[in-house]
Parts: sequence; C-alpha cells; structure tokens
Amino acid sequence: MPHYDLVIIGTGSGNSILDQRFADRKVAIVEKGVFGGTCLNVGCIPTKMFVHTADVAATPATSARLGVDETLDGVRWREIRDRIFGRIDPIAAGGREYRLEHADNANVTVYEGEGRFTGHKELTVRLPDDSETLTADEFVLAAGGRAVVPDIPGLDEVGYHTSDTVMRIDELPSRLVILGSGFIAAEFAHVFASFGVEVTMIARSGALLRVEDDDISRRYTELAAERFDVRLNRKTTRARRTATGIVLEMEGPGGAETAEGDLLLVATGRRPNSDLLDVAKTGVTTLPTGHVAVDEHQRTSVPGIYALGDISSPHELKHVANHEARVVQHNLLHPDDPIVADHRFIPHAVFTSPQIASVGLTEQDAAARGVPYVTATQDYAGIAYGWAMEDTTSFAKLLADPSTGQLIGAHIIGPQAPTLIQPLVQAMSFGLDARSMARGQYWIHPAMPELIENALLNLPLDA
Amino acid sequence: MPHYDLVIIGTGSGNSILDQRFADRKVAIVEKGVFGGTCLNVGCIPTKMFVHTADVAATPATSARLGVDETLDGVRWREIRDRIFGRIDPIAAGGREYRLEHADNANVTVYEGEGRFTGHKELTVRLPDDSETLTADEFVLAAGGRAVVPDIPGLDEVGYHTSDTVMRIDELPSRLVILGSGFIAAEFAHVFASFGVEVTMIARSGALLRVEDDDISRRYTELAAERFDVRLNRKTTRARRTATGIVLEMEGPGGAETAEGDLLLVATGRRPNSDLLDVAKTGVTTLPTGHVAVDEHQRTSVPGIYALGDISSPHELKHVANHEARVVQHNLLHPDDPIVADHRFIPHAVFTSPQIASVGLTEQDAAARGVPYVTATQDYAGIAYGWAMEDTTSFAKLLADPSTGQLIGAHIIGPQAPTLIQPLVQAMSFGLDARSMARGQYWIHPAMPELIENALLNLPLDA
Repeated sequence: MPHYDLVIIGTGSGNSILDQRFADRKVAIVEKGVFGGTCLNVGCIPTKMFVHTADVAATPATSARLGVDETLDGVRWREIRDRIFGRIDPIAAGGREYRLEHADNANVTVYEGEGRFTGHKELTVRLPDDSETLTADEFVLAAGGRAVVPDIPGLDEVGYHTSDTVMRIDELPSRLVILGSGFIAAEFAHVFASFGVEVTMIARSGALLRVEDDDISRRYTELAAERFDVRLNRKTTRARRTATGIVLEMEGPGGAETAEGDLLLVATGRRPNSDLLDVAKTGVTTLPTGHVAVDEHQRTSVPGIYALGDISSPHELKHVANHEARVVQHNLLHPDDPIVADHRFIPHAVFTSPQIASVGLTEQDAAARGVPYVTATQDYAGIAYGWAMEDTTSFAKLLADPSTGQLIGAHIIGPQAPTLIQPLVQAMSFGLDARSMARGQYWIHPAMPELIENALLNLPLDA
Repeated sequence: MPHYDLVIIGTGSGNSILDQRFADRKVAIVEKGVFGGTCLNVGCIPTKMFVHTADVAATPATSARLGVDETLDGVRWREIRDRIFGRIDPIAAGGREYRLEHADNANVTVYEGEGRFTGHKELTVRLPDDSETLTADEFVLAAGGRAVVPDIPGLDEVGYHTSDTVMRIDELPSRLVILGSGFIAAEFAHVFASFGVEVTMIARSGALLRVEDDDISRRYTELAAERFDVRLNRKTTRARRTATGIVLEMEGPGGAETAEGDLLLVATGRRPNSDLLDVAKTGVTTLPTGHVAVDEHQRTSVPGIYALGDISSPHELKHVANHEARVVQHNLLHPDDPIVADHRFIPHAVFTSPQIASVGLTEQDAAARGVPYVTATQDYAGIAYGWAMEDTTSFAKLLADPSTGQLIGAHIIGPQAPTLIQPLVQAMSFGLDARSMARGQYWIHPAMPELIENALLNLPLDA
C-alpha cells in the first residue's frame, strides 16, 4: 500500500497546484477521466468556442433591420466540432503527458482510474486491470461534479445527451428538445438554434434562468420564447421513441402534451462527486447538497484534507475553483500561515443570446435578507452605442446601499455583458462607491461602458 | 447693444451648462450651425452608428474560417443613412426648440449665426439679415473645431468630402480615396470597405494611427494593408478629375504615382475654431496649435471667460468636453470655490476594425519622458475567449511603474477594446496597483476581461 505525502484527486483546477515548490514531496494524482477537468473538456471552454461560432451564424438573421442583407448559407458542423476539439483534446493530452513523463514530475505518480475512499485517508483507485490502495498525509479533493439526469420513465431507453456528449455528435439534428432551464440549457439552445436547429426548451418552473435577478430572468424568458418553443411549468412524465423521433410526454397548465425532437439534451443540473469518492469513509462531512464542507481556508472536517472547486463550491465556476486552488496551494506550502478564500463578489456569465452577467445580490436576494437597497436600471437603448445597435431589449440593473453608495449587486443582459460587468466587480471588490465610480473616471464616448456610467448615475442614493 | 450676464458660444457640450440654477441670469446662446455640436451631428454618434452597421456587414467576409458560410447580399445605403440621421436630426432639432421655446429658457436668447469677437467681451453675431453685437460679464467659449483641408492644387476643383458631409452622400461610390491616416480616416475606411467599397488610404508618414503606441500603430497598419490599398510616405501634389473619377498625383518612395477613386474623403485633421471667433480681440490667448489657453479651472487669460471642449482641449474628445462643461458649470455657479478639471487618465478609442482603445502613456511617450516603466503584452490568442474567436492578431499592452506597480498606460487592439479598457481606466484613476487589480477581484472564465487579468500578471514588477 503506497504512502504519499500528498494525493490530489482530479486534474481540473487541482492540476494547477503542483509546481517546483512541491518537488520534495511524494505526490500522487488520481484522474478517472481525461486531464483538464470539466471546464477544458466539456464545459466553459468548448461551449464558448461553439457560442462564438453561433453568434457569427446568428448575425444574418438580424442584419436586415440595420439595412444589411445577409444570408446564412450553412454551417459545417463537423468542421466546427473538429476545429474546437482539435484544439482542446491536444491540450488535455499534453497535460497528461506532462505529468506522466516530464522531469518536473519525477516526484509525481499518476493513477488513471476512479478513486474511492475506503478508510481514513485511504483511497482505493480502480485501474484498468486491478486496483491500488493509497494512503497519504494530505489529500486535495478536486474531483468536480457531474451532470445529473432526472428519474423519468423511458429516458434510458430513448437515449439522450448531456453537456458531456452533445458537443461531439456527428450530425446536427433538425429538432432538439432540451430538458432544463438553467445556464447550460440556455447556452446550448442558442448554439443549436443559431446553427438552424429547431429548439424546444422544457422547464419545470415558470421562468428560465431562475437563479438570475427576476428582471433578468423575465426578460430572458420573453426573448427565448421568441426564438425557441419554450414550455414552462411542465412536468415531464415519460420519454418514448417513435418512428420520427423522441417524444417527451408532459403535464402542463393546459393538460397533457408532447414535445418531439430528433435529439434530446438533458440539462437539468449537476451534482458534486463527493458520493463517488465516498468521502464519508475518510470522515469528510458534506452539506445536504452533496458539497464537501470546507472552512474559509478550504479545509475539510479532516485535518490535512482540503477541497476546492465544484466538489465543495456551490458556485460551480472555474474562476472560483482556480482561486481556491491558489488558496489550497498556499496553505499546503504554509500550513502555519494559511490564507483565506475570498468568496465575496463572485461574478458569473451566461453566454446565451443576449449574453448575461451578474455579480452580488439579486433584488430578490436583497429583499429576502432584509438589507437596505436601492436599484437603478439603464437600457442599452438610452446610450449612444445602444442606438448604434438598435437595441430595444437589453439593460443593466444595479443595487446599492442607499446610505453608503456601496454596490451590492449588478446584473446585465445584453451584448458584451460579461465584459461590461468587470468594472463593477472591481468596484465592489475594492469598496469603491457608486458616485465616485461614476464621476471619478472617464468613460469613453460613445462606448459600451457608458451603460454602466449611466446606471450608476441613476441610483437614487441618499447623499 | 444688448448686455448679458452670460454668453455661451456653441451648443455641443456648452449646451449642457444651463439648468434652473441659471434661471436668474440673462443668458445668450450663440450657434452658427445645428444644435448639438460635432459629436451628435457629424462626429462620434453617427460614425458609431455606421461602424456598428459596418461590423455586421463585415461578418460574412470572415465567417468561413469558423465553419460558417455566409453571404453579404448587399447594403441599403440610403436606408442606413436615413435610419441614422432620422434619429439624430430630430434630437438636434429638439435641442434647438427647447432653448427657443421652452418655459425653462425664458431667460435665454438664442442667436443663430456666427459670432466673432470685436472688442473686449464684445461679440458680433452675423445673422441671416443683419448682425447683432452683444456684451456680457461672462463668456463660455465652446465653439469646437473643424476639419482642415491641406493646400493641394486642384482639390477645390475636383470636389471632396470631409467627415461633415461624407455620411450624407446619396450613393455609395465604387472606389473611395481617403487622404489621411488618423482615427477619422481609419473609421471611415472600415465603414466603406465593409459596405463593399474599394478603399485607398494615403498617408504622409510611414504608419497609420501614429498617435497610438508604436506597437498598436504598427499592427493596425499591417492589418489595414490587408484590407485597403494603403499608400505610406506619400506626398500628394495635385488633384484632378478624369473621365472615370478623381485622381490624386503623389510622390512616394517609388517615385511619382496616382490613386483614383469616385469619391475623395479628406481626413487630414481638425483645428480649433478660435480663429473664427477671433478670440484675440477680447484678449484671450491661444497656444501655437490654435487652442484657447485655459488654466486648471477652464479659465482663459481673461477673467470671466471660460473655454471647454475642442476649442481649448488637445484631446478633442466628447467625454473630456462633457467633463469640462461640468467644471465650467460649477465654476460659473461657485466662482469663489472653483473646482479643477481632471485631465490625468483620459481614454480614447478608435472604432475601426479591429477596435483600438488607449489610456495613459504610450511606450514612446514614457521613453521620451524618461519615466521608469516596464511593459507586458497579452495576445487574445492566449486567452480562452480569443481561442473561441480564432483571433491571431489582437493584443493588449500595459505599462507600469516597476517599483510601485501603478499603471501608467494601457493600449488594446482587438474586439471589444473600448469596453475592455474601462477597468484599467478605473484602476489608474483610483490608484489601484497592477498586482492588487489582478488578484483582488474575480475575472469571469472564460470571458474577454481575462485578457486584462493576464496582461497584468505578465508585468515584470519588482516586488
């Protein structure tokens, strides 16, 4: 039973921890899939590569109102797919090769198999032919999460895709049914619709993107309904295959109904892989959501066992995992002088159309918590660059403390939202109040950030 | 000879000064053209409306490399033009009507004619049928600038456009010759080329956009040469009309040559209107560039006479003029407690393709001034969103003080540059150092601002 100083489970953000400062430690890395984790292989990176291509493909559909006549002649799906994965797969392979073969990693052993705790600080890895049981002084749990599939009769029989597989299909379907209403559903709906696929989105609740601020969710739901066949408040009761495709049977406000497609994407959520690791066996506690419980130093309930990323974070965002990996790295190197993770102002984006970005509290959050707040919105239609775009539906919404002017939330739906939010993240992170932010710097006229300037000036602050 | 408390000359940013706090003053506004000034009528706003339309029209030309086949079927020039000016002209007219007719402006007299100083605080306005001479205790010089045309034999005879007129032409030419290499030339080259016009750019010097950082100017010049017929180091000696168009005769590195087009745009620069106002007659001094000399309070050499915007600012930017208008407004209302204009960190953008944005010192500025600096660049190709765009030519370049980490310059060429620069403007304006900026906030992965995060991390700072 080999013993290590350190075992890292998962090669997403966990793979960024090791550098030459760990050269004197005996380290094992355990990876059950491909190197690089969710983000690189089946998450943020390939999806954004598809999304940008989709944005380009979607341009002709709306150009005529600007006086520009364009035709989308077609998309070469396999070429797009192979361009994207032709770039990503070698990165994953290179990451694996580096750990397996490079002299920098002479102290590192890679176990390519699924690990499962079988005792206190004892991990058994199922390898192709046998299994190996490792022990270690320290562990980093960075094994991420996975797509979950609801328990609907017939689903396994009809066959379905998740975000893990849908980007690698061989042919575009004519009709895609998406079960789900969160960011993964929204991004793929945009991608496939832009490529000419008829998209049906099926949501259990009454709105899409329900974690967003209510105004953002409502606007997105309205706009999505113009592009897709959006079914809200639907309970899916059964899946079956017919001569012409896959049919979902549903109960909805109007009674029983069906939706049919050639391909089914299940995007109903994800869960942390703490159960697959059986972390309870090593004494690590989890939350009711399945997330590994960690303190501000990313330490689990067991001394010497750290966790980071999707396995422990409710945010499930790569930039959070990367930050946590830096915290864990420091704390492994300097256990007597640990640093804390900063989870105050975490932005996220949804790369659908229009794009969405958000940081801090939504208005419903602020109301529920009883914090004092004022809001302001600014339409793109009210700034010069919005005129240029002939935009009529996009806006930014800010929340601030009326007495101090400190920003407590920012939500944007519209072009460049994930870029426009950065100065707001910066202001919140460094305690810059709304009035100073608006008037203490120049905003290029007429550029997109005037949206933020004007939203800030619209805030009805006390002073 | 009517006497006023205050006379404002020019209705660009100058028109934003008056509000109800001036209700007890007898005010005159003098405007020789249309209300709203350069930016609204012939500058930033209509150009950006054309630029966005051009960006859309340019999409099919580059979509195929992403696997998306699109065709530009055509652009409806007159509809584009009329959509844009159908929106702008009523705003200008509404601004005029407000000052002439609204009860808020009972204390305001509008003189629609060209003003010229004829004595100390004495302005004579040429009206359609006669002239009127006004005196006032205070003046605001906000009369802007105008396009200048070089002294080239034959130019007047062949006929030419400037930025004042080229956006209102009736038909797109097949071939456009642009004399000039600055931001106006670069923006119109992009607009017309995107609409299918063959563009020739003629520059006196060896590069386009020479006020930008040398690396930016060089990259833009390379990219422009791929799209346009770019002629550098050319001295234009004569213009003449032939049976097929307008011909410019030039001397260049290879000897004598010609360029021919159906339409000629002269975009060789602008100058302040201090000469048309004959400001010397009222004792106001000017700089060798023709700009009215002002102090940090926007006061000219004559007590009670203020200046703002293009007539006094070497920046010639609307956001600077608006800031100065707020300073002048305050100082007119509170002469005993004047505020100063902040001209420290003024960004600007060029909405060509690729877009360009800049703030602070260029590397050649920093070297010339002998300030200590280090630089870092980050290619779009090195961030995930740049992969998505398959970008190979865009980058950000930063300059910072190596000992303090304070940013002293930022220059970006690439998609969304005018949006991406805002967090850097904010950091410079509020004294946030590069390392804190990079690590003290989250950057959405994989969104465009990761370009800035990585550029910051690349800076080789001392500490």
